[in-house]
Amino acid sequence: MKLVMLARTDLAMSRGKMAAQVAHAAVLAALSGLGTADFATWLEQGQPKVVLKVGDANELRRLAEAGKQAGLPISLVEDAGRTQLPPGTLTCAAIGPAEDRRIDAITGDLPLL
Amino acid sequence: MKLVMLARTDLAMSRGKMAAQVAHAAVLAALSGLGTADFATWLEQGQPKVVLKVGDANELRRLAEAGKQAGLPISLVEDAGRTQLPPGTLTCAAIGPAEDRRIDAITGDLPLL
Repeated sequence: MKLVMLARTDLAMSRGKMAAQVAHAAVLAALSGLGTADFATWLEQGQPKVVLKVGDANELRRLAEAGKQAGLPISLVEDAGRTQLPPGTLTCAAIGPAEDRRIDAITGDLPLL
Repeated sequence: MKLVMLARTDLAMSRGKMAAQVAHAAVLAALSGLGTADFATWLEQGQPKVVLKVGDANELRRLAEAGKQAGLPISLVEDAGRTQLPPGTLTCAAIGPAEDRRIDAITGDLPLL
């Protein structure tokens, strides 16, 4: 089991800002997963997390849609726009928690952040 | 209200590895906070998150202890050591969610990541 976060690398975000967006996606995924068997198994396994790079908003939307079509839990993060980005900027998505192979079928060839 | 993550910058972690540690701390904080008034308020406010730098494990432990003494929720992340770090390495902490001024009293002069 794992939770994968997809982070856009084409935005002018500091390392800390990007980490906060990834954290936001992870918290959304955790709150959505509460009470499900996949979430419980993932927690027991120590909450494995991987962060992958996506090149732009279109790629992020395409992958999120593919995950949704495959029945995977998807959480999207739009930045509130208080600091470094315009309000509503799509920055990050979480896919899972779910079995590795189901996520890999969607995100397989993306590089690690 | 905010949730603050403190991330060590003295470890050899990639940007993605660090984001995953920060996300881990945020998920632990969210799961610990479930059902509390502070957590509910923080969610309503859009889950504000800030990531700050700490220089080493001693500084991280000292700040976490100070937060605990001040009655703040503290979550510590020790890496499982599967990839870039030795097992059990303390990488990150979350303080909150709590009122800004209560967290600032502990973390006030730390720089943004």
